[in-house]
Amino acid sequence: MTTTFQAVDPTTGAGFGDAIAEMSKAEVDSLITKAAATAKDFAATSPAKRAAILRAIAAQVEASREKLIEVTMRETALPNGRLTGELSRTVFQLEQFAKMVESGTHYQAVIDLPDANWVPAARPDIRKANQALGLVGIFAASNFPFAFSVIGGDSASALAAGCPVVVKAHPSHPNTCRIIHEAVVAGLVSEGISADAFGMAEGLNPEITHWIATAPAVTAIGFTGSGMVGKILIDICAKRANPIPVFAEMGSLNPVFFTPNVLSEKAVDLAKAAMDSALLGSGQFCTKPGILVIPSDATGDAFLTEVESYLATLAVAPLLNKGIADRFGSAISKLASAGGIKVLTGKPSDAGFGVTPTVFIVDWKDTKANHELLEEHFGPTTVIIRTDYSNFTAVASAMEGQLTTAVHATGADQISDLVDVLANRSGRVIMNGFPTAVAVTAAMQHGGQWPASSSQTTSVGLDSIYRFLRAVAHQNFRDDLLPPALQSANPWKISRSVNGEVSKGAL
Amino acid sequence: MTTTFQAVDPTTGAGFGDAIAEMSKAEVDSLITKAAATAKDFAATSPAKRAAILRAIAAQVEASREKLIEVTMRETALPNGRLTGELSRTVFQLEQFAKMVESGTHYQAVIDLPDANWVPAARPDIRKANQALGLVGIFAASNFPFAFSVIGGDSASALAAGCPVVVKAHPSHPNTCRIIHEAVVAGLVSEGISADAFGMAEGLNPEITHWIATAPAVTAIGFTGSGMVGKILIDICAKRANPIPVFAEMGSLNPVFFTPNVLSEKAVDLAKAAMDSALLGSGQFCTKPGILVIPSDATGDAFLTEVESYLATLAVAPLLNKGIADRFGSAISKLASAGGIKVLTGKPSDAGFGVTPTVFIVDWKDTKANHELLEEHFGPTTVIIRTDYSNFTAVASAMEGQLTTAVHATGADQISDLVDVLANRSGRVIMNGFPTAVAVTAAMQHGGQWPASSSQTTSVGLDSIYRFLRAVAHQNFRDDLLPPALQSANPWKISRSVNGEVSKGAL
Repeated sequence: MTTTFQAVDPTTGAGFGDAIAEMSKAEVDSLITKAAATAKDFAATSPAKRAAILRAIAAQVEASREKLIEVTMRETALPNGRLTGELSRTVFQLEQFAKMVESGTHYQAVIDLPDANWVPAARPDIRKANQALGLVGIFAASNFPFAFSVIGGDSASALAAGCPVVVKAHPSHPNTCRIIHEAVVAGLVSEGISADAFGMAEGLNPEITHWIATAPAVTAIGFTGSGMVGKILIDICAKRANPIPVFAEMGSLNPVFFTPNVLSEKAVDLAKAAMDSALLGSGQFCTKPGILVIPSDATGDAFLTEVESYLATLAVAPLLNKGIADRFGSAISKLASAGGIKVLTGKPSDAGFGVTPTVFIVDWKDTKANHELLEEHFGPTTVIIRTDYSNFTAVASAMEGQLTTAVHATGADQISDLVDVLANRSGRVIMNGFPTAVAVTAAMQHGGQWPASSSQTTSVGLDSIYRFLRAVAHQNFRDDLLPPALQSANPWKISRSVNGEVSKGAL
Repeated sequence: MTTTFQAVDPTTGAGFGDAIAEMSKAEVDSLITKAAATAKDFAATSPAKRAAILRAIAAQVEASREKLIEVTMRETALPNGRLTGELSRTVFQLEQFAKMVESGTHYQAVIDLPDANWVPAARPDIRKANQALGLVGIFAASNFPFAFSVIGGDSASALAAGCPVVVKAHPSHPNTCRIIHEAVVAGLVSEGISADAFGMAEGLNPEITHWIATAPAVTAIGFTGSGMVGKILIDICAKRANPIPVFAEMGSLNPVFFTPNVLSEKAVDLAKAAMDSALLGSGQFCTKPGILVIPSDATGDAFLTEVESYLATLAVAPLLNKGIADRFGSAISKLASAGGIKVLTGKPSDAGFGVTPTVFIVDWKDTKANHELLEEHFGPTTVIIRTDYSNFTAVASAMEGQLTTAVHATGADQISDLVDVLANRSGRVIMNGFPTAVAVTAAMQHGGQWPASSSQTTSVGLDSIYRFLRAVAHQNFRDDLLPPALQSANPWKISRSVNGEVSKGAL
């Protein structure tokens, strides 16, 4: 029995477009087998070739821009400006990886030549370089239909590492996934790489996730999504006969702290900016500020007054899908009914998956009775916590791991203890800014602390490539049997550490 | 009720020396609490200070050399030469980490300055550097009383990373642990660091492992030992409210392949060298060659003839403790009774924990009926597998992840497919050598593939420090609130990547 599904327009809740067939287990297994069969050849591509492949994919995605924006707007109800920027970021990210791979830095090649005087015994010739893990299973996220979907950061970094990919398309934007998949395959094929190296599984069936995660040929998982699904994946992969790493980015509360001094200076501006950040993309960002911590004094009152009046003027676009809208609705009802909570709302919208932006205000002491206040709620909501400024560091210390933390302060504020705690709790600490923008740069860190992420790694920025590489040392090897990155002639002219000194030359 | 235990002399099986008290849960918890309280200050030590601490510890360990060798020989029955070399390696490893930390390379500092033209939006000031994870729980191994015990590679890399440590002493060499612990504490205190930063738990009680692994203050585990205990630790830590990484090195078969060509040239020398490697340290190495793969032809026959006659002349020192000796005895009996197996033995020894070196010979096709042949058996034994040379790559492909793999071949051998498979299966591939020597160098890789290890990392060599660090990005920060490694003045004069260019200067 073949079942099919359709895209859904979030502005109406009605299905539209082609009927898409649910893939069977045999079909998904076949994608995996075919992709795994390309692993050795794909991993062996030279830096120049791999860079050319990434650039060809970027060009194909860019060439699909017009069609993509149109289809993706209809599938996600996200505005043109946002999608245009996100697509540029997605293309840019592929180009940045191409540049990195071309330089060969990702091999992290280290050559220690023989040393008869090494301690405690003579040292042999040892040469180490990173190599691709093998086939990577990737799960597309609903909220970034380009940047964290079929050819988002996870896929781009896996391909850059030299790993073939099987990606699970997100059924919340299935036609977007198809266009992107076609573009990726066209890019691969234009560079002579088999289309099998990038398989895409389609369907609503949650079993697809299990099929991918339990397949013996899959060597690692890249996941961006909810803590609930992330934890299921981690559990499945830990129970395999050969456990594999799950690099899961599972969302975050991203608390933002405001000192009395900074609110004295600009409570109105910061209240508006905080609301804009919390409601951006209808609050469907993993970096949404889900908690704002403000002082329980007059400066905090001024902030709240502005939040109330500004919020009342704001509406948001419909949520991405029915599941998100339903979960948002029930979370809001539950939170609103808790003791000690004040509820503020924006403009309602009820067409399709439309919702009303809703902000909660609560004293820190009242959060203990309702732990849901300190959990992530996807959608246009945030919790404003009031407490004495002297208590800020204690509040930060009580929080779990986060993708980001932020503090707004003036030069007069003595906040080094608070900053230490925030750095201890998160992968990125922001000063006088909001978390809802993640630059794709070498210095970016997105992840690193449980439960926001499942490993010490980052899922954004160039270092995300290292999730899909592992080091292998070759000892006393015949030169022609070494990987090119380690051969004495340095045929790829990459940067290597030779006896502790960086060199791009031959030995 | 306080219970006590004693060291045991492996040459007699009799207890000796001081009665050592089993620690209670309250005592272990107290060690953990005190060590965690030092985490912030210890992590904040400058590169120069951290290097001085590591060198002070190295000096104290070196100063205890005479006493250590005497006590450790009696506790482990390992010979003086081996222990002398291992102690030198242990001291050297601390000094190497000091050199690395002093240079600041372990911060991997990356600074991306603001760029208004960045895509898709202006880039803020983002600066990333590694910081210490926090308190690390470490489990000492029985088989390396210095190099993988109280101040072995795991502890040295954790301290180098800026993490305080609680180590579980190994009851197989309890007095060695005490002397080393005193030396480490003396080194810390001589540099003004609290003795609390390095706690040691003592006892036979297996619950101690659970107490350490479940303590909320522990942020990571370093473990070297059996797959059985390693998997228990991984399971415990995955089930914590905040799961933590377990960096477990769980042993390995370390298969060594011999081509017909190389055996034609030197079957006798290689057979002797293979036996010496397999029986080194009474076969109690994680890098012991536990499988030798030889051709089922005349060259293989010549190898076996020499193995048989050479082995008959060899005896080994007693095993480290009763548990290891008992498990060895029962594994040998079980394997010897399997079908299709030929058994060769060395000279017996039955004083204390003495055993007889035992080698098994089996056709590849007969290994399927007895999967224990392809499992690690700690002690002086190895399994010689015979198969057609054309089948070597298939045999390698059928194996699980290994710490090391090796191949002996001549320049005439076409073995690139075999080498590819070996590199895919192991962290280190050795050509024309044996795995039982692990140099502490930048290029060393020890681990990386399940079930030999639980992560993509290495537990030997300088890169092992990265297990206990994670990156944190600071965005748009006030300079005085940045970690020194990221401040514009570069007060520690460390090497940083600034907008992609390496610099040791100020911004």
